[in-house]
Amino acid sequence: MEQITELSYALDTFYFLVTGALVMWMAAGFAMLESGLVRAKNTAEILTKNVALYAIACIMYMIMGYDIMYPAEAVSRWWPGISFLLGGDNSLEDVLASGGDIYYSGMADFFFQVVFVATAMSIVSGAVAERMKLWSFFIFCIFMTGFIYPMQGYWKWGGGFLDANGFLDFAGSGVVHLCGASAALAGVLLLGARKGKYGPNGEVQPIPGANMPLATLGTFILWLGWFGFNGGSELIISNVAEANNVTLVFVNTNMAAAGGVVAAMIVARLLFGKTDLTMALNGALAGLVAITAEPLTPTPLLATIIGAIGGVLVVFSIITLDKLKIDDPVGAISVHGVVGMWGLIAVVLSNGDATLGAQLMGLVTIFLWTFVASFIVWLVIKAVMGLRVSEEEEYEGVDLAECGLEAYPEFTGSKGSGI
Amino acid sequence: MEQITELSYALDTFYFLVTGALVMWMAAGFAMLESGLVRAKNTAEILTKNVALYAIACIMYMIMGYDIMYPAEAVSRWWPGISFLLGGDNSLEDVLASGGDIYYSGMADFFFQVVFVATAMSIVSGAVAERMKLWSFFIFCIFMTGFIYPMQGYWKWGGGFLDANGFLDFAGSGVVHLCGASAALAGVLLLGARKGKYGPNGEVQPIPGANMPLATLGTFILWLGWFGFNGGSELIISNVAEANNVTLVFVNTNMAAAGGVVAAMIVARLLFGKTDLTMALNGALAGLVAITAEPLTPTPLLATIIGAIGGVLVVFSIITLDKLKIDDPVGAISVHGVVGMWGLIAVVLSNGDATLGAQLMGLVTIFLWTFVASFIVWLVIKAVMGLRVSEEEEYEGVDLAECGLEAYPEFTGSKGSGI
Amino acid sequence: MEQITELSYALDTFYFLVTGALVMWMAAGFAMLESGLVRAKNTAEILTKNVALYAIACIMYMIMGYDIMYPAEAVSRWWPGISFLLGGDNSLEDVLASGGDIYYSGMADFFFQVVFVATAMSIVSGAVAERMKLWSFFIFCIFMTGFIYPMQGYWKWGGGFLDANGFLDFAGSGVVHLCGASAALAGVLLLGARKGKYGPNGEVQPIPGANMPLATLGTFILWLGWFGFNGGSELIISNVAEANNVTLVFVNTNMAAAGGVVAAMIVARLLFGKTDLTMALNGALAGLVAITAEPLTPTPLLATIIGAIGGVLVVFSIITLDKLKIDDPVGAISVHGVVGMWGLIAVVLSNGDATLGAQLMGLVTIFLWTFVASFIVWLVIKAVMGLRVSEEEEYEGVDLAECGLEAYPEFTGSKGSGI
Repeated sequence: MEQITELSYALDTFYFLVTGALVMWMAAGFAMLESGLVRAKNTAEILTKNVALYAIACIMYMIMGYDIMYPAEAVSRWWPGISFLLGGDNSLEDVLASGGDIYYSGMADFFFQVVFVATAMSIVSGAVAERMKLWSFFIFCIFMTGFIYPMQGYWKWGGGFLDANGFLDFAGSGVVHLCGASAALAGVLLLGARKGKYGPNGEVQPIPGANMPLATLGTFILWLGWFGFNGGSELIISNVAEANNVTLVFVNTNMAAAGGVVAAMIVARLLFGKTDLTMALNGALAGLVAITAEPLTPTPLLATIIGAIGGVLVVFSIITLDKLKIDDPVGAISVHGVVGMWGLIAVVLSNGDATLGAQLMGLVTIFLWTFVASFIVWLVIKAVMGLRVSEEEEYEGVDLAECGLEAYPEFTGSKGSGI
Repeated sequence: MEQITELSYALDTFYFLVTGALVMWMAAGFAMLESGLVRAKNTAEILTKNVALYAIACIMYMIMGYDIMYPAEAVSRWWPGISFLLGGDNSLEDVLASGGDIYYSGMADFFFQVVFVATAMSIVSGAVAERMKLWSFFIFCIFMTGFIYPMQGYWKWGGGFLDANGFLDFAGSGVVHLCGASAALAGVLLLGARKGKYGPNGEVQPIPGANMPLATLGTFILWLGWFGFNGGSELIISNVAEANNVTLVFVNTNMAAAGGVVAAMIVARLLFGKTDLTMALNGALAGLVAITAEPLTPTPLLATIIGAIGGVLVVFSIITLDKLKIDDPVGAISVHGVVGMWGLIAVVLSNGDATLGAQLMGLVTIFLWTFVASFIVWLVIKAVMGLRVSEEEEYEGVDLAECGLEAYPEFTGSKGSGI
Repeated sequence: MEQITELSYALDTFYFLVTGALVMWMAAGFAMLESGLVRAKNTAEILTKNVALYAIACIMYMIMGYDIMYPAEAVSRWWPGISFLLGGDNSLEDVLASGGDIYYSGMADFFFQVVFVATAMSIVSGAVAERMKLWSFFIFCIFMTGFIYPMQGYWKWGGGFLDANGFLDFAGSGVVHLCGASAALAGVLLLGARKGKYGPNGEVQPIPGANMPLATLGTFILWLGWFGFNGGSELIISNVAEANNVTLVFVNTNMAAAGGVVAAMIVARLLFGKTDLTMALNGALAGLVAITAEPLTPTPLLATIIGAIGGVLVVFSIITLDKLKIDDPVGAISVHGVVGMWGLIAVVLSNGDATLGAQLMGLVTIFLWTFVASFIVWLVIKAVMGLRVSEEEEYEGVDLAECGLEAYPEFTGSKGSGI
């Protein structure tokens, strides 16, 4: 009997570690996606950002973020408490005495959560690509992962007021994706568009990404990682009902992405006459974001449709943002923000416990909090150290300016060929 | 006792999800492999094909393929029935009452199977690269994943006549790899060779792939994914004997690939005087395909040898197909078709239940069915919308013609450099 | 009761297979890292080396390495016995009769160990890049993976004299990483620096890598794989205490890498005025190597610090080796050797069972054995077939000389453009 409890604890913990490792892998996905969608001269810098933001996110979340988001004792449903630095794990006695309430390693919960923070932050890095100062980005990263993200995370997943008021967000269309996109939007508005992106007469100049295989690889990595992202968010697998649930989450996650690809591809073909690869990739990601708020209650057919609607939305959103001269080189605000909102609303389609009111309340709260808090932080950074590289540095590429090296020194013919 | 049953169910289901996720990851492997082996100007299109075929395969297999392949009630061993759209999962009562017969989530079986279909279809995309119309490929994909693949899958894994007659194919050297290669061959024959591949006097013009690191990455991804492909095909892991079996499958899969690399590398060195990387990669894949029909009964040493023979075969097969002017840019027909046949035959080396007759019956059936059915579908598509892009489009690259963008706009010097 | 034992065996075996698969994935990581850090003209060759060394390592370790490292009956603690070729697995009877001593598949242990050998060998390939003859490398690989590595592995993990004398090395900062780096150093000293790397007046000429996204991808792959590398080295997960342990290992591994990134990035910025991406990547790897000798006893905060010190060390080590004109194109000797030593010493910071004396004894033993044995093997190879390609081949690139193809035929403008 005790052995069964122990074995069950081990299985659930292992399930957490495997799914958490898959989410960590998403960091590589964002790095590849974003480095594929920027120009060659800005590639090393965005790679640096992606490696560094993951590292900073892990450290900040360990030092304070996790305690804010999941406080041992909260002050109120609006304001968490600060408990203590990451300590020991569950004792065998506590596990056995808990009657099943303590069913996996507490440290495994930290591992799973910490990789989520990095995901939210990765969303920002793409939107501000090709023109932001590297260390300004790092400073923002500290505030975002140590405070802004954990606060709104507490309101939902930590048991705060959004949770108490019936807002539903299974794996984070809102808490992770909309949050990241809102912070990105604030940064983009303060940062301005890349030079040459919008002509004097309002025309939009396409700036093609330098490396499509990387962008595609990144999308596949994210797709794979999302099985961990959504699949691990069920938090338990060790009995028949839960194993079935986790499985359904895997299937629905996969089908939503498939629906997103097909829908975005058809829309792009109808609009542009060409089957634009980047739209197919954004369609996949949109399908994934759309299903993230509720991957458990839809049938696979409905999941496909929810994903497909996400795929349609993302194409029109990207076009619209460009009309508004909001310059997002990788489409992150559309994929994670606009479609994140759709995901939150789509919960009402299949989950009887969801209400449109509660979903909208969550949506607005997450957006407003993150946007305003981020805007203030960006603004202070701008005042103190500046947000944007110089025009000359932007022209030359941020790789040389910020990293002192080139991503592809032999391919673009600009320098260092052939040494 | 019931708890043990539940826990066991959970472990087997989790094992299915993990191995299924690894197979899904193979879609990324094929995308990278194929995009590395084509020319830069045709890269975005093959990436689009790979993302889209995975999405289409998932949707078609959900809507009808799975029901054909694993019908609730079959009409006969030649013809499956159509049951119903993907429904609910096993209830706890049914699991407990089954006495161990129902030991994992039915939906997890769907998840595992659906990623296999995509694998079969990925084989086709490489062989027809650099000259096929994108949407003609998509149409074929619908038929292949919704009907052609599931039918022959039913004959073996669904309990059809091949299974009843003693044909053995553990994880699909035949059902997946030979099937994919047969469909590819039909397409290639109708499509013709790429312009310039074969000179007027029969000389073969090498057309080198644009990006060897991608091809290598793709091979490593496939190698990793194959642990899921073969390892998951044992279908159960929850007791000592089965855990040992799954482990042996992992080890043999790995050793066969290793044998394939070394053998192909030596043969290439002897034939060409150079250690051709693409042959080493094809050797790895050949080893993997060769062991797929029976990764459980050989010793690791025999598995290495079976893989090595696959590695030798693939080099000669690639040379031979070129002599026959069958233009397969990535060697897919050799790797998956020729070596798939070897894999089916090699079953008799270690599995006492196998007979050469039954293996050949399966081999011929799968090849004939898939080739003929595919040929007809390709032929109809050719008549209705055409298979091949125009000469000018082929010269310019299918990326611009079909996708309206370039995979590497700054590297090849043709366009858009430096914006 | 027996069912619980069986289920527990299955879970531990599955845990081994999953973590082993992650370690296998590190082979792809090294391939991408190294191919990103060399010049375009030497890329296909290093890819070939990485695929081939993995295959050779698997075969040699199966044929003899595993038996040396984990002999059924050892001759002494200095000299193992040779037992027999890889045979069957544990019987159910033995498992049940063992009272928990036999708790996972013996073949799974082989699978886990075999991927470690390949890791050690991968370290060598990077350091000797861009100038070594391919088949000379292969010959060395045979001796390294079949004998040199297994001998010192036996001394620690096989129960030899290092283990008996209290030397601690959880997952191989010494047995794997320092070992690989020591073999690399011997090779590099005999091989000499690349042409043009060090000027006549002692100045160091930077030779930038051709593809930073690949190097970054490789680092992320290694980071992910390291969860398997360290996480699997706990060897058991099936009860509460062990599940907690494995989790802590995952968390500490992640935090050490994060600490390494941030520290290396700051040091690079201070030293060079630029945020050098390659230093950030080396910082991540240094953090991972540093924590590998003891990822279980530190708190996550201490793990972060241990990793950060590794990140500082690696930057200074790379600079110092260049001053000593030891030419290591990818920094492998610094990352795995210098930081591997730091990892071994850092064990005393958190593990009360460790003594500085025992750690230094292990460190010196592993280094001396591997360096001397490797030096002799390299020397013999040099005498018999030569180590280094001709000057002309080096100038032209080893890709054409050794592999007969180019990694990027269309990007560098040298040949074959546009066919």
